[in-house]
Amino acid sequence: MKIDICKLKDYENKEITIQGFVDKIRNLQYVQFVILRDSTGKVQITIEKNDENKELVEIIDNLTLESTLKINGKVSINEKVKLGGLEVIPSNILVTSKSLPELPLDITSKDNALRETRLDYRFLDLRREENNLFFRCETLLEQAFREYCVNNGFIEIHTPKIAAGAAESGAEVFKIDYFGQTACLSQSPQFYKQMAMSAGFDKVFEIGPAFRAENSHTSYHATEINMADIEISWINSFSDIMDMEEVWIKYALDKLKNVYGEEIKRLFNVEISDTSIKFPRITFKEAKEILKEEYHFIGEKEDDFERKEENLLCEYAKKKYNCDFIFITKFPFAARPFYHMLDDDGLTNSYDLLFKGVEITTGAQREHRVDILTNQMLEKGIKPESLNFYLDFFKYGCPPHGGFAIGIARIMMQIFEIDNIREATFIYRGPTRLNP
Amino acid sequence: MKIDICKLKDYENKEITIQGFVDKIRNLQYVQFVILRDSTGKVQITIEKNDENKELVEIIDNLTLESTLKINGKVSINEKVKLGGLEVIPSNILVTSKSLPELPLDITSKDNALRETRLDYRFLDLRREENNLFFRCETLLEQAFREYCVNNGFIEIHTPKIAAGAAESGAEVFKIDYFGQTACLSQSPQFYKQMAMSAGFDKVFEIGPAFRAENSHTSYHATEINMADIEISWINSFSDIMDMEEVWIKYALDKLKNVYGEEIKRLFNVEISDTSIKFPRITFKEAKEILKEEYHFIGEKEDDFERKEENLLCEYAKKKYNCDFIFITKFPFAARPFYHMLDDDGLTNSYDLLFKGVEITTGAQREHRVDILTNQMLEKGIKPESLNFYLDFFKYGCPPHGGFAIGIARIMMQIFEIDNIREATFIYRGPTRLNP
Repeated sequence: MKIDICKLKDYENKEITIQGFVDKIRNLQYVQFVILRDSTGKVQITIEKNDENKELVEIIDNLTLESTLKINGKVSINEKVKLGGLEVIPSNILVTSKSLPELPLDITSKDNALRETRLDYRFLDLRREENNLFFRCETLLEQAFREYCVNNGFIEIHTPKIAAGAAESGAEVFKIDYFGQTACLSQSPQFYKQMAMSAGFDKVFEIGPAFRAENSHTSYHATEINMADIEISWINSFSDIMDMEEVWIKYALDKLKNVYGEEIKRLFNVEISDTSIKFPRITFKEAKEILKEEYHFIGEKEDDFERKEENLLCEYAKKKYNCDFIFITKFPFAARPFYHMLDDDGLTNSYDLLFKGVEITTGAQREHRVDILTNQMLEKGIKPESLNFYLDFFKYGCPPHGGFAIGIARIMMQIFEIDNIREATFIYRGPTRLNP
Repeated sequence: MKIDICKLKDYENKEITIQGFVDKIRNLQYVQFVILRDSTGKVQITIEKNDENKELVEIIDNLTLESTLKINGKVSINEKVKLGGLEVIPSNILVTSKSLPELPLDITSKDNALRETRLDYRFLDLRREENNLFFRCETLLEQAFREYCVNNGFIEIHTPKIAAGAAESGAEVFKIDYFGQTACLSQSPQFYKQMAMSAGFDKVFEIGPAFRAENSHTSYHATEINMADIEISWINSFSDIMDMEEVWIKYALDKLKNVYGEEIKRLFNVEISDTSIKFPRITFKEAKEILKEEYHFIGEKEDDFERKEENLLCEYAKKKYNCDFIFITKFPFAARPFYHMLDDDGLTNSYDLLFKGVEITTGAQREHRVDILTNQMLEKGIKPESLNFYLDFFKYGCPPHGGFAIGIARIMMQIFEIDNIREATFIYRGPTRLNP
């Protein structure tokens, strides 16, 4: 079997097989060097131009960059070799696939091609080391999220992505032709994760796609995103949800730091956030006062924040608590969906979590009492008849519950300080991008 | 915080809080019993009808089944209590939600309501103990699948579910209105997991939704399913894929058996399959001979199997190897998609894995050489121009690779010996079912 290139140093003087992409070729008078790359690293293949190597030399003479090779050879420790202090002396080289001599873009650096060209040829763009690391880190982050849940008794659900109606409003929903009927693509698992609470599932999670037919072309919108959703029963208040989310995020960030912290620093020049500090929690009202008094800033929206305010609040959290995160609680009902539970003052038992200047999560306790829920619908101008299937969930006993959702690309962008969701998605989908 | 009911025995004589659904009420002359249920178990609440308990007694007098309660009380070990040998003596009872007195179906047993009624009220149907266990097991199975992958250096991908064109053929695809264009819902991550190979991701996995617009009403079709997909680079042959899949399935089944084996036996009367036996491997040709000679059965299709043949082949594997699984290899090209690699005899380097009478997986080495791939397309009557974006993946170097896919509901049905996919899906979607 193939040996991972990063592990070759364990095979000194041994016969091994490696496989990878041709990263570089140097064809000199007496010797040929090929740099072979797999997703674990790069290694130098050294071929002396002598009679014995005639066949190998001919293969390299005709080789194109980015072709793939299968190489049998011996590992030779050689301190003169800059790349890891070793080289492979091949006895056999098989070209397993041949690249065209000209690539449609220069993949040696992100800045050597336009973003749109890189997205057209995303499979080439993803060959860059940073992208490989990025998706390894995403893998680890998601798995840590799930691991925490599974270890704590959560059930994983897969809510349907095809739904009869829109989850929250008629707008911004993709329509499907469903055997002659019109169906919708799910914007969120919200109603169905609440259904799981009514089903007595206690604690559930899902990581899956969500779809938004927004004709937006900003750096943080996509029509298809990957979301993590959490919902928990038997809570006493929405603080239980914040507590859980804080522990959950810290668990995943710590794993990320332990496994890939150094690599992330080397390739992205970013430190993973300190998780030893308790995330500060302030109310929406306090936040508005801080913005006014400390930053002399009054946002345009009275009931919500604009980007600039989120930014300043994170600046404040960093300055005052040395923390990259801050919870803002008790948003006005006007800024929240109908199903958020209200307190005695008419404020929602809800929160946003901001991270490095951007909102990454909305969480809340849900209203589980069907009469109050129906009234809140009416207040928002939603006809209860249009959501009868949902209201049913609350008629036959339903635990007090709450939860939150977090876009995976969004948190990854903030961790890696990447400014465009197109760079943080395996294959980006936007209003004018359906390819590849 | 709430104590899980299954853990109450650790709290003898202690003051605790529990929460759950009202499972049963017995209102006798001198005493009231309430059975409270959470997703970890059931417990008896005992209220003596005396002056001190006046308020509690009144609450229970007005209580409906399936309402939810929050109870403060003391755990009393009492061997006379059949249910776990303990009871809770409440000091306070809070009705956190009230159920209507009449449920739309009897949820005490699966057989007490029509399936369609149960699906209409899936949130009530899921309250049954078997269903709770089933989805706990699915959670564990999926997490074990992922854990194996992450521990072995796989990258998790999330391929787009909205695609410009159909993955494999124009038929049986849901159409979406995508900002005025027509787009499709993804039938499979096939092309995009192959793209990950071209991107140098080495080994990838995905568990996510796939959509099929088949107007089928059988017990094993759904329009939306949850699929696990695997793709691996640098393989020597499709045997590498079978090897990986066998280890991967055994890893997950062993976990399932260790954690839930006894519960599964109690509630489903099923033993988890023995994983100590190597899965037998026979060729398609051998399989047809066995069917003919041992079972005197000649199927209608020369190039493929029908259900009955899959059944008999599993009977054979059980009899001859005492194994619930069997790999059938080298299917004729006629029964396979264009991208399966062919051997020198024109047979595909592919396999099916059968499990307890049913095919659960198709796997194969993929053709990664663009000229041969194009020819195979033509042979299947597909216009290469229609899949240019896909052919591009193979033009700039692409590792030899292969993989497989497995429907999660399908393998869960076989493990639990459940005969209908509607019972094995959190929320089923079919041609005539879009609700809830």
